[in-house]
Amino acid sequence: MDDHTDGRASGRTDPTDPVRAHARTLVDWSARVERGDDVVVSVGAGAHDLAVAVCAELGERGANVVTTYSSGELDRAYLRAHDGDFDADPPHELALYENADVVLRLSGPLNTTAMADVPGNRQAARARAHRAAREARLDTRWVSTVHPTRALAQQAGMAFEAYREFVYSAILRDWEALAGEMAQLKEVLDDGSEVRLVTERDSGPDTDLTMSIEGRIAVNSAASVAYDSHNLPSGEVFTAPYDTEGEVFFDVPLTLQGRRVRDVWLAFEDGEVVDFSAGANEDLLEDVLDTDEGARRLGELGIGMNRGIDRFTDNVLFDEKMGDTVHLAVGRAYESNFPDGEEEKANDSAVHVDLITDVSTDSHLEVDGEVIQRNGRFRWEEGFEPV
Amino acid sequence: MDDHTDGRASGRTDPTDPVRAHARTLVDWSARVERGDDVVVSVGAGAHDLAVAVCAELGERGANVVTTYSSGELDRAYLRAHDGDFDADPPHELALYENADVVLRLSGPLNTTAMADVPGNRQAARARAHRAAREARLDTRWVSTVHPTRALAQQAGMAFEAYREFVYSAILRDWEALAGEMAQLKEVLDDGSEVRLVTERDSGPDTDLTMSIEGRIAVNSAASVAYDSHNLPSGEVFTAPYDTEGEVFFDVPLTLQGRRVRDVWLAFEDGEVVDFSAGANEDLLEDVLDTDEGARRLGELGIGMNRGIDRFTDNVLFDEKMGDTVHLAVGRAYESNFPDGEEEKANDSAVHVDLITDVSTDSHLEVDGEVIQRNGRFRWEEGFEPV
Repeated sequence: MDDHTDGRASGRTDPTDPVRAHARTLVDWSARVERGDDVVVSVGAGAHDLAVAVCAELGERGANVVTTYSSGELDRAYLRAHDGDFDADPPHELALYENADVVLRLSGPLNTTAMADVPGNRQAARARAHRAAREARLDTRWVSTVHPTRALAQQAGMAFEAYREFVYSAILRDWEALAGEMAQLKEVLDDGSEVRLVTERDSGPDTDLTMSIEGRIAVNSAASVAYDSHNLPSGEVFTAPYDTEGEVFFDVPLTLQGRRVRDVWLAFEDGEVVDFSAGANEDLLEDVLDTDEGARRLGELGIGMNRGIDRFTDNVLFDEKMGDTVHLAVGRAYESNFPDGEEEKANDSAVHVDLITDVSTDSHLEVDGEVIQRNGRFRWEEGFEPV
Repeated sequence: MDDHTDGRASGRTDPTDPVRAHARTLVDWSARVERGDDVVVSVGAGAHDLAVAVCAELGERGANVVTTYSSGELDRAYLRAHDGDFDADPPHELALYENADVVLRLSGPLNTTAMADVPGNRQAARARAHRAAREARLDTRWVSTVHPTRALAQQAGMAFEAYREFVYSAILRDWEALAGEMAQLKEVLDDGSEVRLVTERDSGPDTDLTMSIEGRIAVNSAASVAYDSHNLPSGEVFTAPYDTEGEVFFDVPLTLQGRRVRDVWLAFEDGEVVDFSAGANEDLLEDVLDTDEGARRLGELGIGMNRGIDRFTDNVLFDEKMGDTVHLAVGRAYESNFPDGEEEKANDSAVHVDLITDVSTDSHLEVDGEVIQRNGRFRWEEGFEPV
């Protein structure tokens, strides 16, 4: 009819654009979007440019899109003004996710401490009240990813331009090849019964923690729902431990509700946290552990294997995937770690908070008494020292 | 517990902030939000600051919020990439609105011509396919408002600072008092059977149009759902005409899908558009009229009465409310213009496009043969000339 009708072809204008490549990886490799899929795209306040690229990809595939808006500033304003008595699962929110096939979360904060003055118990109360909506989201082919913003660069202590390069080098990988490497560790964990983590630290107490993984399925987290993996980037192998015993120290800080929590130490008996401490903002850790019964049990043991991530950037989505790290999450376990029909064994909680420890030095990981990683080297890698 | 728990009280930090006053007017006067309401807040790409204020108001009232994101750039990317064969009413979108009590649309474009190169027929096709979602939205206590952006200032030909003042002077009014003024016109229209609009223009053809309004209820549009009024600002009295006969020329331009349409002329026979022209971008007008059967019939006759709006700003939400203007919409009629049980008489269409004419000079409006407005003055106002 006129020159405006050729729009479809010009959708792919610049194949070298990393934002467009990110969107394609997200839509095709990660979420496996197909024609007719009902997709929710959650757009962070600073993720507009990625959202434009994702919408172009979704339009090209003939998916149906609802875009939601995610902003720490909006959440802060709402939560601070609210009296804390939250309605259980508002029906509009619940129905949105119950009817979605795919949820793509494009994180992109303008200020990573936007929520710093929101009481943690208020956030936890809303999380508890909106639990079914969370379940419904997790029942979709959901994927969380990150659009680089200046706020994230600042949190990482990096220049924006360098941070962008860091993000795209972590995301635009050969995921098929990485999935092959990770399959080796999955095999060890699937065949194993007990994991032991041992570290010695000058900066805090020693770690000696044992966990059962018998009957669990390790997930080869290759940044695709086809691998039961829901983060882009990913690059970790994780499982759902239980019967945890011993003590563990996490030397990597994390940010909870906009505030930095350092030097978390947990002591477990019979699978439950019986003592804890943190070097800063311990009250936030306490809020998390007091959320519900499941918040004191482990939901995840993850082993980072993405060596494309070459530094800590104070962002759990990247940090926990870094090679030479191990993380444990208190709270909710992922059903993907359980055989069909045993999903109800998964630790149940409204929270899932990852805690990370560096295992590049003075550390080893055992499975059924056999060392499988020492000082960051796996036993199938060069440089591995068995004793 | 600590000083962060006093957040609720500090929700209202600056009562003189016009953004916060706007949010309060929207939530209280316009949408009548109450505790437990399930609210969808549609956040325009440039409306973030208003959204923060609205979320604070909604939190304070204990309403439940889902925030959606509205951006011409996302829509453009999606629509241009799509092949145009849209699925009928995606269930996640439909369920979101079917389960909402209130929809607050915070418009705030970063570029009012962001959609300029999207084919109009593609937008119309999606509007047709997503018709039930639109119906569900219109079944809520929905309100559309505008956050001032530089793009809107530019479209208005104004400096940003002056435009902000313009917007807030239109929005932050004594709505109760204006509702009283408008009640007089509502009474005339409710008692009347036929409206005739007559104008003489140097710039285009003369207007002489008659419409039946028998059996219809005029809406005193006082920017509140309590008045069946869904725009903030508002300040118009509107009804749903039928059996339209004659010709009408609209000397105020409008922007359709990012492009300017000027000098629209319509000829009606038996209530339907039988001939039309436009001075620019006539193809867009044709797309609108060809959307469906109802798109060729009138859905609205509106008479602008907000004299706080003192200039055209190329934004229908403001322009159609300006004192001394009359507008007609082709397409969908509002059910609020019909007595209970007669809503099915409302003209049905996927579109509703307002067309505006200046009646400040060489114009008059008759109801049942009696002149009720001449050259912008109503018969109950000083300066009214009956002949």
